[in-house]
Amino acid sequence: MPLFFKISLIIFFFFVSTSSSSSSSSYNHPLDCLTLSELTQVKTIVNKSYFSLNVTFHYVGLNEPDKPSVLSWLSANHPTKNPPRQAIVIARIDQKTHEIIVDLSSDLIKSDRIYDGHGYPILTFQEQNAANELPFAYPPFISSIKKRGLKLQEVVCQSSAVGWFGEKMKNNRMVKVMCYYLDGTVNLYMRPIEGITMTVVLDQMTIVRYLDRLIVPIPKANGTDYLEPKHGSHSNFQQDGIKIVQPNGPSFTLDGNTVRWEDWKFHVDYDMRAGIIISLASIFDVDKGEFRSVLYRGFVSEVFVPYMDLTEDWYFRTYFDAGEYGFGLCAVELQPSKDCPENAKYIDGYFIYQDGTPGKMPNVICIFERYAGDVMWRHTELAIPGKVIRKVRPEVSLVVRMVSTAGNYDYITDYEFKQSGSIKVTVGLTGLLEVRGSIYTHNDQIKEEAYGTLIAENTLGAYHDHFLTFHLDLDVDGHENSFVKNNLKTSRVGNKSSPRKSYWTVVSETAKMESDANIQLGSEALEMVVVNPNKKTQVGNNIGYCLIPGSATGPLLSDDDYPQIRGGFTKYNVWVTPYNKSEKWAGGLYTDQSQGDDTLAMWSLRDREIENKDIVLWYTLGVHHVPKQEDFPVMPTLSTGFELRPANFFQHNPVL
Amino acid sequence: MPLFFKISLIIFFFFVSTSSSSSSSSYNHPLDCLTLSELTQVKTIVNKSYFSLNVTFHYVGLNEPDKPSVLSWLSANHPTKNPPRQAIVIARIDQKTHEIIVDLSSDLIKSDRIYDGHGYPILTFQEQNAANELPFAYPPFISSIKKRGLKLQEVVCQSSAVGWFGEKMKNNRMVKVMCYYLDGTVNLYMRPIEGITMTVVLDQMTIVRYLDRLIVPIPKANGTDYLEPKHGSHSNFQQDGIKIVQPNGPSFTLDGNTVRWEDWKFHVDYDMRAGIIISLASIFDVDKGEFRSVLYRGFVSEVFVPYMDLTEDWYFRTYFDAGEYGFGLCAVELQPSKDCPENAKYIDGYFIYQDGTPGKMPNVICIFERYAGDVMWRHTELAIPGKVIRKVRPEVSLVVRMVSTAGNYDYITDYEFKQSGSIKVTVGLTGLLEVRGSIYTHNDQIKEEAYGTLIAENTLGAYHDHFLTFHLDLDVDGHENSFVKNNLKTSRVGNKSSPRKSYWTVVSETAKMESDANIQLGSEALEMVVVNPNKKTQVGNNIGYCLIPGSATGPLLSDDDYPQIRGGFTKYNVWVTPYNKSEKWAGGLYTDQSQGDDTLAMWSLRDREIENKDIVLWYTLGVHHVPKQEDFPVMPTLSTGFELRPANFFQHNPVL
Repeated sequence: MPLFFKISLIIFFFFVSTSSSSSSSSYNHPLDCLTLSELTQVKTIVNKSYFSLNVTFHYVGLNEPDKPSVLSWLSANHPTKNPPRQAIVIARIDQKTHEIIVDLSSDLIKSDRIYDGHGYPILTFQEQNAANELPFAYPPFISSIKKRGLKLQEVVCQSSAVGWFGEKMKNNRMVKVMCYYLDGTVNLYMRPIEGITMTVVLDQMTIVRYLDRLIVPIPKANGTDYLEPKHGSHSNFQQDGIKIVQPNGPSFTLDGNTVRWEDWKFHVDYDMRAGIIISLASIFDVDKGEFRSVLYRGFVSEVFVPYMDLTEDWYFRTYFDAGEYGFGLCAVELQPSKDCPENAKYIDGYFIYQDGTPGKMPNVICIFERYAGDVMWRHTELAIPGKVIRKVRPEVSLVVRMVSTAGNYDYITDYEFKQSGSIKVTVGLTGLLEVRGSIYTHNDQIKEEAYGTLIAENTLGAYHDHFLTFHLDLDVDGHENSFVKNNLKTSRVGNKSSPRKSYWTVVSETAKMESDANIQLGSEALEMVVVNPNKKTQVGNNIGYCLIPGSATGPLLSDDDYPQIRGGFTKYNVWVTPYNKSEKWAGGLYTDQSQGDDTLAMWSLRDREIENKDIVLWYTLGVHHVPKQEDFPVMPTLSTGFELRPANFFQHNPVL
Repeated sequence: MPLFFKISLIIFFFFVSTSSSSSSSSYNHPLDCLTLSELTQVKTIVNKSYFSLNVTFHYVGLNEPDKPSVLSWLSANHPTKNPPRQAIVIARIDQKTHEIIVDLSSDLIKSDRIYDGHGYPILTFQEQNAANELPFAYPPFISSIKKRGLKLQEVVCQSSAVGWFGEKMKNNRMVKVMCYYLDGTVNLYMRPIEGITMTVVLDQMTIVRYLDRLIVPIPKANGTDYLEPKHGSHSNFQQDGIKIVQPNGPSFTLDGNTVRWEDWKFHVDYDMRAGIIISLASIFDVDKGEFRSVLYRGFVSEVFVPYMDLTEDWYFRTYFDAGEYGFGLCAVELQPSKDCPENAKYIDGYFIYQDGTPGKMPNVICIFERYAGDVMWRHTELAIPGKVIRKVRPEVSLVVRMVSTAGNYDYITDYEFKQSGSIKVTVGLTGLLEVRGSIYTHNDQIKEEAYGTLIAENTLGAYHDHFLTFHLDLDVDGHENSFVKNNLKTSRVGNKSSPRKSYWTVVSETAKMESDANIQLGSEALEMVVVNPNKKTQVGNNIGYCLIPGSATGPLLSDDDYPQIRGGFTKYNVWVTPYNKSEKWAGGLYTDQSQGDDTLAMWSLRDREIENKDIVLWYTLGVHHVPKQEDFPVMPTLSTGFELRPANFFQHNPVL
């Protein structure tokens, strides 16, 4: 659950006060995110246009140029003429949601559309903070706190998206506010003040509903802190005693936001909503003497986190961390030599505050060469008379990392590029659990559905899921691709032609329509390959990239349940859609209070043709989290992920 | 497929020529493998007993003391009186298989049993090498080579287990011999001389069946070599430029074969059959001030690798790499700073030659602290007014690694101990494919079942599986444990009690009998926990360890197919059995030509009670391998594995 107190950010975010002119000459790549001066320019243009009204900026980002124009820019080898530079602004003006396209070279608003469908834009930090402050001037809350014998100055409140549960009303932007108790700990999430929930209407910034439903003990502070690690007395372990060193410096280069490392070339950037976006990843083929495309654009499209607690203060906790809070906006400053190893380089990012002012997010992405003592390939050959061959190639890869702290939870997202041509994505889940205060101090007392694990006295760790949906616009050696299912099928040997009775073989099936590519992973033996049907290797194999999934986890909510309707894109682990510039966000562009009418699941109902088209692969990985006492008071990282691995893309092992 | 030419080993294996006395005082731990002098002693005692006969030693290892005596030794805090020190010898004498127990302190044979059931012991290197040499003095073979216009001095032959396909005959130890062509490459496996298969009876060491069935082109040497890596011209990557350094040295200690690192303590050793054996792993609980047991003994029990090619020269290739060849015997000398990082320490191992002479396997296991720039846990807290908290704990773990080269394939096995209490096991598959020579140079020519991928001209990479079955004798905080399935079940909300329509909750089921614990992994949402039902945490949770599987792969062969009858233990990914000292090898003690009557699947048919017993968890991970051109001529490592993760074992996160 994203909970913010962004006032504190002022301390370390560098505020931009220079109002810039309409210069947009400082960028090099058509997919570069908006620069500091471009963001300032956007603010100026929009505010000028609505000078009498209060504009709240919820999202500002690059209005990505059309794919053909980016590709022709690329194939013309970076000509001086770039595609038009535009920003997309999602703003609330006069209680309406506006989608504004700003043309930066002409300094003009190109289009301005009012959106009146379901759902609202990303919540801003400032409005969440304002909502979090309301209880402290709200007499019923003050009296609730007094009634519990708590110190008001030790209370911290946090906003939560409200979800959607079949309500018909529209234009009613709300959050729910829940409060926590410090008083001897920094781990507020382990000390919920259970029973009090406030509903705040954001446009009026007032508490419209106040519920003080029950009093349960607040879990004690003792044991919740994570600041001062204690060590086992017998331990001689020194954290600082081990280091990764690269005396000659990193062997990757960063030209603007374009990374070159070994045979890889790609563009990396930061977006308020998606976080890291990897673009135009291609790999140099030594045999062909050219770069060959792999991934046009890849990013986290949505993060769905439904909790399984039906009590009044909990049922609505069904978060969409990207669409409701901004997976990039939740990114945090990385700590050198802690979040990333000693040899890492860092990139800053720029987001916008509610008033449109850009803010700097220092060290938002790190890039480093990863060496873990693993082996890329090896062989020992003892079969040749008079020879002993031992050939080992250690594994060094390149990692692009961001950490997104959605309130209590910390997501570590790694895009790892391997010399073998693989792109491996790993998501680490750590941070703090979301717990419910409870009367229980021992399991024996629990006679009803508790919706969680008793992980400490008075502390229920609520059952929940994490689903991360990735948008993977693969362009495997070109843009027209097909999705192939290689089914591993058992064949019986009918006659006595073999001493064997069975074997398996590969039965390939090319998905013609979207519905052919809907896959719930499970026990079926299956390879999933995105191929270029227009190209073959010398021996005639389809040139492709395999999706190697890391988790076969799917949703357990009923299809007709409201959170699952909104999160319908998790129904299948794999979807394939024809490329459509507007289909980026699996949970819909306006996810806050969405009603599920603009999700990947809905788009895909059209069942469009996907064979030999420019296609997008969507992969959802999931974790069912049954909390354990080891997750208290801070969770050891649990990692999951997937790999895109070349499958007859090269003529042979590219790392020879 | 294990293929050996062990003569060359003489170059680097240190031969032991000192004949030792009956001293057995040089060991400290009852689970220490046999020492050099003990192995020599075993040879002397057995040879003395059968002085007139030719004894071939197929396996010599520690006859593990009974578990209670090891545990009482442990709980008495290592008294001077150790359990009796015994060796188990599996030998062939006068064409019979003997199981000989040698008592080392009395210098006597304690028992000597002739085994006359199905199956034979591990093949020795020497008999394989002898078989491999036979063709060079066999005129029909020489003429076959001449007929093909090949140079005999460039031919290398290799032995293969023959499997079992319903034959009734017994006492007929055999291998099949296939040959390969060098002539310009060291990668013999990419140049099979297809069509020639010889059957050798080992006891007579003669070719009893010779088949020259067809002539197909030998794939060309060009492109098969892996010795001289070429680099992309644009690359500035330096493999030596990145290092892991530990200026103060490693922070683990090795006392004999007992490792101490952070809160972990365990015993590590090398066995000819299993490879690495981890014993008595326990973790110090700072709160309780004591070591708590986790794993009594864990090792690779069997490695089943069936190929899916039904042709005459291939149908029998259904390998059991541990039982037929010795997973430990196939271990290779690790290359410092290549196979393991710069900060690794190495352990030597001792195996025996066919005549009983011990040989030293230098650097057979490495141990190192692993630091990959990952995060053990972290959190950024921005919600507390006036405070910014950024707490990050980098991940450092301890890895125990062995590489086993079963002929063409290289298996990298890592046992990784985490400070969080997890034991993570990773298996990396690399090395060289087993390919079939073929007339085809292009896919378009293939009109019949090819049983593989055309990965280069005239080179079919055969479809195959790898199943690794782990014997995991967990002793979770004591010996009596139960196996609990936590099923995540969807609950519908029947009435209007909640705006939600569904949620999931945990329905626990304790396995009473073995059959209750047979699990084929798939799409089912399930947690698998080994718990100690006699102990609870303070808040009343079962103390346990979770099995987090890494792969849900199961066999695709028919149950009634002969290889699958022998590999019946792969039918379920998970089995639980009551501890039985004799049930160690999932494919049976005598796996070569086994008939499946001594497998885990057969033992488990008794359906014994497993609740609150000393139980053993068996986990099988698998990979279906559809070869790709990138696997040619050497395979990039493909990794899979599993994790044993504490589940309410501790009162809280142990790394605080």
